Amino acid sequence: MSPDIYLESTPLHEALTKWLKRLDSEGIVRPLSGETIKVIDSLERVTAEAVIAKISSPFYHSSAMDGYAVRFADTFGVSERTPKRLKIGDQAVYVDTGDPMPEGFNAVIMIEDVNIIKAQSIEHRAQSNDFIEIIAPATPWQHVRVIGEDIVATELILPENHSIRPVDIGAMLAGGHIEVVVRKRPKVVIIPTGTEIVEPGTELKKGDIIEYNSRVLGGLVSEWGGRPVRFRIIPDRIEELKKAILDAHGMGDLIVINAGASAGSEDFTANAINELGEVILHGVSIKPGKPVLMGLIRGKPVLGIPGYPVSAYITFSLFAKPIIYKWQGLEIEEPEILRAKISRQAASTLGQEEFLRVKVGKVGDNFIATPISRGAGVLMSLVRADGFVRIPAMSEGIGAGTEINVELMRSKGDIENTIVCIGSHDNALDLLANILKKTYPMFSLSSAHVGSMGGLLALKKGEAHMAGTHLLDEETGEYNVSFIKRLLPDKNILLINLVYREQGLLVPKGNPKNIKGFEDLIRSDVVFVNRQSGAGTRLLTDKCLRELGITPKDVKGYEREEYTHMGVASAVLTGVADTGLAILASARALNLDFIPIAKERYDLAIPQEFFKAEMLRCLVRIIREDTEFRDMVIRLGGYDISDMGKVMYEG
Amino acid sequence: MSPDIYLESTPLHEALTKWLKRLDSEGIVRPLSGETIKVIDSLERVTAEAVIAKISSPFYHSSAMDGYAVRFADTFGVSERTPKRLKIGDQAVYVDTGDPMPEGFNAVIMIEDVNIIKAQSIEHRAQSNDFIEIIAPATPWQHVRVIGEDIVATELILPENHSIRPVDIGAMLAGGHIEVVVRKRPKVVIIPTGTEIVEPGTELKKGDIIEYNSRVLGGLVSEWGGRPVRFRIIPDRIEELKKAILDAHGMGDLIVINAGASAGSEDFTANAINELGEVILHGVSIKPGKPVLMGLIRGKPVLGIPGYPVSAYITFSLFAKPIIYKWQGLEIEEPEILRAKISRQAASTLGQEEFLRVKVGKVGDNFIATPISRGAGVLMSLVRADGFVRIPAMSEGIGAGTEINVELMRSKGDIENTIVCIGSHDNALDLLANILKKTYPMFSLSSAHVGSMGGLLALKKGEAHMAGTHLLDEETGEYNVSFIKRLLPDKNILLINLVYREQGLLVPKGNPKNIKGFEDLIRSDVVFVNRQSGAGTRLLTDKCLRELGITPKDVKGYEREEYTHMGVASAVLTGVADTGLAILASARALNLDFIPIAKERYDLAIPQEFFKAEMLRCLVRIIREDTEFRDMVIRLGGYDISDMGKVMYEG
Repeated sequence: MSPDIYLESTPLHEALTKWLKRLDSEGIVRPLSGETIKVIDSLERVTAEAVIAKISSPFYHSSAMDGYAVRFADTFGVSERTPKRLKIGDQAVYVDTGDPMPEGFNAVIMIEDVNIIKAQSIEHRAQSNDFIEIIAPATPWQHVRVIGEDIVATELILPENHSIRPVDIGAMLAGGHIEVVVRKRPKVVIIPTGTEIVEPGTELKKGDIIEYNSRVLGGLVSEWGGRPVRFRIIPDRIEELKKAILDAHGMGDLIVINAGASAGSEDFTANAINELGEVILHGVSIKPGKPVLMGLIRGKPVLGIPGYPVSAYITFSLFAKPIIYKWQGLEIEEPEILRAKISRQAASTLGQEEFLRVKVGKVGDNFIATPISRGAGVLMSLVRADGFVRIPAMSEGIGAGTEINVELMRSKGDIENTIVCIGSHDNALDLLANILKKTYPMFSLSSAHVGSMGGLLALKKGEAHMAGTHLLDEETGEYNVSFIKRLLPDKNILLINLVYREQGLLVPKGNPKNIKGFEDLIRSDVVFVNRQSGAGTRLLTDKCLRELGITPKDVKGYEREEYTHMGVASAVLTGVADTGLAILASARALNLDFIPIAKERYDLAIPQEFFKAEMLRCLVRIIREDTEFRDMVIRLGGYDISDMGKVMYEG
Repeated sequence: MSPDIYLESTPLHEALTKWLKRLDSEGIVRPLSGETIKVIDSLERVTAEAVIAKISSPFYHSSAMDGYAVRFADTFGVSERTPKRLKIGDQAVYVDTGDPMPEGFNAVIMIEDVNIIKAQSIEHRAQSNDFIEIIAPATPWQHVRVIGEDIVATELILPENHSIRPVDIGAMLAGGHIEVVVRKRPKVVIIPTGTEIVEPGTELKKGDIIEYNSRVLGGLVSEWGGRPVRFRIIPDRIEELKKAILDAHGMGDLIVINAGASAGSEDFTANAINELGEVILHGVSIKPGKPVLMGLIRGKPVLGIPGYPVSAYITFSLFAKPIIYKWQGLEIEEPEILRAKISRQAASTLGQEEFLRVKVGKVGDNFIATPISRGAGVLMSLVRADGFVRIPAMSEGIGAGTEINVELMRSKGDIENTIVCIGSHDNALDLLANILKKTYPMFSLSSAHVGSMGGLLALKKGEAHMAGTHLLDEETGEYNVSFIKRLLPDKNILLINLVYREQGLLVPKGNPKNIKGFEDLIRSDVVFVNRQSGAGTRLLTDKCLRELGITPKDVKGYEREEYTHMGVASAVLTGVADTGLAILASARALNLDFIPIAKERYDLAIPQEFFKAEMLRCLVRIIREDTEFRDMVIRLGGYDISDMGKVMYEG
């Protein structure tokens, strides 16, 4: 049996059309039948029938003011010069706002406009021989809420297929309804599969995979108005899977199997669906998400969703969301589209429509989209993403600077309130991001790690509000300033110190290979992990090697580049490398040993033009004044904050 | 005691600042403390602490592909011309995607790229003396998901004050969390007050008011992330109210009293708050919503919300929403603002900031905002509204055609998919709106009733997609065509028949005043209710009077104008008038008697330029083909649909 037996590569549009048309032709995607619920519990549900007013609101003529009900005919000819007295109880009756009009009365005079004529007191509800004096005539029905002013019986309050909002609840109650017929919420049964899959919270052993996709998909179902039902984890055994599918078939409207949709030796989803029903389509030319699978079992749609979390998210959104909406009688809202310039090129495979995750920031007048990790297994790329860019199947990629459409996942307002920091990575930036969000919930700090030099270039191109930088000028011994003058001659830059920090070689706990310094990197049993070129840490590495007369080709692993300190620490922790240069905080975080090499200055470069913006002023206020932030940085270890917030250069 | 004792008139901005500053100075609007819940239940909750990864994901090196794990050093020098065999089990180990890498192995070769050399079969998991043959070297860690590829232990997964989305749930679980600390949901206790207030579903008697405001406010609380607690209805007795407030004080974070905030004889809210604590502010110069009241009782905020539903909605949004958001550590999202042209003038009281409800439609390239009912008691004005226009306190109003900002309540996309029908009212239009939404959930039909002439003028000004019209040319006896030619000489108009319908005089059941025709309108005991000028029905009225030689001033009530057939029917039903001219369907709806006067043609005028739009084509398809629609129109009574959908004129 060839492993590729089922996998096709259908273009996305064609696949979607085929899937939905087929379900339509089977009568499967019609709105679900209605169920009767209490109006007061109907928020965010969808009407399954038009709601017609049973009674008018108000259902009797009532006073719209506090005052006296009168017969307008009794007020003819009244003026300031010819005032008139009306006998209380007979010609004028006190009414509060909302009180029914007494029979035969047809106008209200406001309390402010009458003079109460009474011997003893000025009590409102006067008796017998008291009068009101008026100085202007009343017009018919003035200050009266006539029957049906708000709602007329038989009037349409809500049409069918309407999402119920708080005001709609009020209007239904006012119109005499205490129950409403709403669409049943589509039930989606999600079956997590895989022998290696374990429940969150299980004691983990190598080879275990924590099951979280079903929770992500379930969350999406809830957001879309459906009801997720999470099945127990099913191991990779086809008979068990088939039994689970049949059980799920009785439980919901849509059955989702995650994963086993690929063509590997343990991917049984296609076979299981084929034996129980029919595979409509297997394999769509999208990236990520290619092995998605659509089927039909005894009149119910079945989706085989790939296992990688990003693939799962994207394919589920593409192929499940339209059905869940149609079942509710709702139309999918188009995502907000933002025109943005892409900051880096993104190559793409011809023949596959790619869903590129991007971060977006507004720098000056431009929206800038920066691609983030493209791995189908990197869920954090979705957590961090502000939106998607779709690269068409017939495109080989997008060049840097190209204008593209971003399908937003966050609101434009949020994006406009986000500080874009591109440059060198430092753990203190993560703390800063958190404290900013905590102190000023409207603002966010988004950082992309491309190294110090990359950060300054981003400022030059107008793609960032600030850059973290620690570039040592070997000639002057000064940090950052000469680079800024050289790279950004036209910009007025404010250089603010964040921290001084210790760089050193990370080694596993106990230093098993007894590494003492850069001189050990030429040993045949030592594998190094490097930082990308343009990183301040890379410059420091190269300086250290040069001073020792070591050429890069003699260092094993010199060509393996990581983009962050934590990346280097992780490589050392996990045995991918024996050592690498990074900051102390990263060693502390992963409990590694640390051989100090240098103390360096880490600054933030901020163009003066952005410094005036409220969000940057708030950020700098935290750097300068927030004691919680300072304490947290100190606790990271290896930091000197004596110049934190100080202006190091202003140009 | 003067009823005006508490009411001030503070400008909105000042009131908001005073309220929030005061709460802030008392330490009341800080984010609420956290509570620990399961990650899988945390959708849409807000983090109360940063979420830091406890473990890396993946937490072991794992294969990213189905294939063979190898040591990359074993593959040096391999090429197509110098292939190499690796012994299975020893130098190459089969791995499925996600399997942990065997100890010491550091690259994966995809199954597609190996040739399995075996005597008997091509089983994947071969034993003993089987080999794979490769024709290219492996690079270190190729097709391996290294530890932390997605999440590195100690990494920030979510900052504090972050609204949890489905992907965030996945990331927390992947990062080793099964619980998360989220903000407590703010509890808002809503006390409905009023002796006249009754629960929905109660047998109604005159003077009763159905209590629905608490459900609208509660729905808003839920939408804003809080938890509404609805107190029982409290009658207008100050001691009971005070006791209720004290009970509510122990139950929630914010106490809301609705209503009794005005200055009438039964408005005890201000007194009650004053006796239990402090009234911070009473009376804000907004319309509607002036009598809103803010107070503080033993460290908890109290709001007195006016009783009219629109006032309640607006004041609650203004004064409660910011607190509920701040308690969650969230920032209020700014409403989407749309620039639109206002189609009618809207006068406004100087010194009051007015919240005008508008319907918005996109006609051609312009967004057109049309003011709707301004009564504080008209909840349907909120149900029907697409947004608010704020008329500043220092403005006396907005002239027709002015560009204004609309704070949207519906999405711009929805608005773009709405057919704007301005013109004469017909009950069949309501049915059409419902069937359109049911059949094509993406499209809506919004109709404004300004009479036939007003509809044609709206087409002329580019403010509507279509107009309902029934204008009889007395000279030719023809309906609509001559008016279109005269009023819209520059437009190409398609005139489609909707119905023929019967107009007649409505009278109460049994016709108590024995009205036989227009000749009875001059009787001294008969009060008429008219339609607004420009309405086709008004033209018919005037024609009938003229033919009988009756002058308008001899008709009592001639000057009282209603804007819809149902308005006329309602006036007759409720005794506001004895008779009025309207269509049979409106008589049927309210069970009135009907004296036939004329049969008339009701057409829809649609400019050709709009007719091409998908939404209008869908609408016309319903008119022409939908049998459910036809059946429903027939059931309304008094309609002849023999020409329904037929083109009556094309110019």
